[in-house]
Amino acid sequence: MINRLATRDPDFTRSLAALIADRATATDVAAPVAAIIARVRAEGDAALLDLTARFDRFPITLDQLAVTPAETAAALAAIPADQRDAIDLAARRIEAFHRAQLPRDFSYTDDQGVTLGLRWGALDAVGLYVPGGKASYPSSVLMNAIPARVAGVARIAMVVPTPDGIMNDLVLAAAHRAGITEIYRIGGAQAVAALAWGTASIAPVDRIVGPGNAYVAEAKRQVFGRVGIDSIAGPSEVLIIADADNDPHHIALDLIAQAEHAEDSQSILVTDSPALAEAVAAALASALQTLPRAAIAAASLAAHGAIIEVADRAEAIALANRIAPEHLQIMTADPEGDFAAIRHAGSAFLGRSAPTAIGDYAAGPNHVLPTAGTARFSSGLSVFDFLKRTTTTSLTPAALAAIGPAAVTLAEAEHLEGHGRSITARLA
Amino acid sequence: MINRLATRDPDFTRSLAALIADRATATDVAAPVAAIIARVRAEGDAALLDLTARFDRFPITLDQLAVTPAETAAALAAIPADQRDAIDLAARRIEAFHRAQLPRDFSYTDDQGVTLGLRWGALDAVGLYVPGGKASYPSSVLMNAIPARVAGVARIAMVVPTPDGIMNDLVLAAAHRAGITEIYRIGGAQAVAALAWGTASIAPVDRIVGPGNAYVAEAKRQVFGRVGIDSIAGPSEVLIIADADNDPHHIALDLIAQAEHAEDSQSILVTDSPALAEAVAAALASALQTLPRAAIAAASLAAHGAIIEVADRAEAIALANRIAPEHLQIMTADPEGDFAAIRHAGSAFLGRSAPTAIGDYAAGPNHVLPTAGTARFSSGLSVFDFLKRTTTTSLTPAALAAIGPAAVTLAEAEHLEGHGRSITARLA
Repeated sequence: MINRLATRDPDFTRSLAALIADRATATDVAAPVAAIIARVRAEGDAALLDLTARFDRFPITLDQLAVTPAETAAALAAIPADQRDAIDLAARRIEAFHRAQLPRDFSYTDDQGVTLGLRWGALDAVGLYVPGGKASYPSSVLMNAIPARVAGVARIAMVVPTPDGIMNDLVLAAAHRAGITEIYRIGGAQAVAALAWGTASIAPVDRIVGPGNAYVAEAKRQVFGRVGIDSIAGPSEVLIIADADNDPHHIALDLIAQAEHAEDSQSILVTDSPALAEAVAAALASALQTLPRAAIAAASLAAHGAIIEVADRAEAIALANRIAPEHLQIMTADPEGDFAAIRHAGSAFLGRSAPTAIGDYAAGPNHVLPTAGTARFSSGLSVFDFLKRTTTTSLTPAALAAIGPAAVTLAEAEHLEGHGRSITARLA
Repeated sequence: MINRLATRDPDFTRSLAALIADRATATDVAAPVAAIIARVRAEGDAALLDLTARFDRFPITLDQLAVTPAETAAALAAIPADQRDAIDLAARRIEAFHRAQLPRDFSYTDDQGVTLGLRWGALDAVGLYVPGGKASYPSSVLMNAIPARVAGVARIAMVVPTPDGIMNDLVLAAAHRAGITEIYRIGGAQAVAALAWGTASIAPVDRIVGPGNAYVAEAKRQVFGRVGIDSIAGPSEVLIIADADNDPHHIALDLIAQAEHAEDSQSILVTDSPALAEAVAAALASALQTLPRAAIAAASLAAHGAIIEVADRAEAIALANRIAPEHLQIMTADPEGDFAAIRHAGSAFLGRSAPTAIGDYAAGPNHVLPTAGTARFSSGLSVFDFLKRTTTTSLTPAALAAIGPAAVTLAEAEHLEGHGRSITARLA
């Protein structure tokens, strides 16, 4: 059902290493992706139409490439009111949290008379990749598009494939709510190539974000440098630190919510309570019985899930820092205090009433988060992904006279005489 | 000497495109780099010693791998006092500017009773690659290491190859001033592999920054994901917007300072004054006559340099935004006003007394900057490269009751029933 480990086990270090070993399955699609990108660069729209007919089994003409406002309006009308309201609540909360992230410019003149500044600016244009078919999630549209809007990106171009002609109304509704008016029904490496290089119908963008399959991920890697990209997300994961004072049924459901994503998802409970460990293990079985995606969740729990017993709080914290989980739930008597000792986590959910699922949809913080331990050095999607900085330097002649000679000394030491002369000439 | 263009030329668009075409020379070293990384992962220190003996022609033993405090002290003693002072002045100024960048955590409780926060944290360990031999620059050590220190990175491990046993005293002195105490005399792809994967002697890091040759750049690409990396810098460049009221000699020296870096550097002057264009072109020739690196600078100016005449200020601004230069100098009557219209530039130097060279060494802003138009979507090195964010979510039971149902609606719409149940169970 789920793996059981304890830090007191003699082979714990090895068991843990095996548990958190890379779960991502690498598919080498570099060559076919390179060929697709080259074709789109050479043939533009014609290649897009042809590849869409082939890969999505959906022949479209050039004037069907873009989703029309009428189609979006129809999608909006087609979804139930409670879904429309839920999208609106989520959008408002995501917007508020990302607005709070907006950084401030600064500028100061120091005692040498040098004025230095830093100015943030939005990217001009962003491409948003949205998967089609079964993995088409309106929540992802909100989580990717809203930070870009809040950052001030003027143009967001969304691509979403329509395999066999099927388009998800909720995805269109979420795009509408996020203010996206430019949507193309294309996907795969060809859509990434079109966003990066542009075609007659699709203007190029500056950065491409959003999840996708192995072809999309590889295409993003290959266009990186021409445009910016977000990080390539691995399988999703949660680590829950819980003390004895918890409802085991809640924790079982939290583990299952993560496990139902995919078989390579990972759900880990860390607890200093053997009784809770037992109770959660028992609760898992009953909770799975009525779950629609029980087969996926059970496979994930069996292969990658674990209940880990620790001796104390310190061991629990150390484990979380070692694993650097994408999602961290702290269900203890002092969640804020325990979080203060956490160094690495993508997003933390503090207390007994904060399941990860609330963050997946409606809390406000982003659900696009670093996986596979990359929270050690990277962060979830934010307004910072859609902003860039320009630093500014301005000097009075006196300021240049004050700090110029040091620069000249260093330039000469680096044998860059010309650098020094561009300063010295102004000191005359 | 230097290319001459004007926006009024009938073929200007094509000439400009040719001028700013990608100057980076791609060297495909993927296979040898992959082999080196695999060897270091498999053999650890033994591979490091062997590869260092081979590529750097410098056989070292395991206990010579790390530079000793005594060796650093000797390097410090060996350099002239004015160089020591210049390093100190530059370090203090870089430190002050990067300290001003440090972002603030935030936390708020909204009207639903949801408490949301964002906490910044430093990376645990960073690797700093410093090129050896002729391209060994103490200024780069300061520019890469100080932002990491200011961000709060506890461990900075520096690698610097010593080809034929030669170590640059200034580089060691700069490392000392930046507070780096862990230095290894290794380089190339093998050093990157050691930093990413660790060996018995070198603990792994979380992110690797710093410039390097094609092997180093490719190695960074290949270890990306395992660790974070900085962007791969292309050839350096400056764009100067200048009105008639400038000393042509100063501008010629600024163009030459950029051109002397390497033959693939790019120096562009944009001016609405035909007289200044003529005068700068004339000044270039005389300024080159006594320059030690005249051959490199002349080759760069001839191949990639340009003086571009524009009709007015608007055309100059549009050109800068089109090119998105790494360094931008604005030498006009209203540099701040003109900068307000600039959307894309790595670092801007405002006014007639702010040559790019002052920013290369001592102004304070970072000299590691986006090249080749990537300022459209990326930024110079900063404390943000050494920080990551964790978002926090905490809810009262009432808050979960308020926003939970919307999340459940979306979860069910996405066919993730388990997500919904983890919320619903808590609402009972």
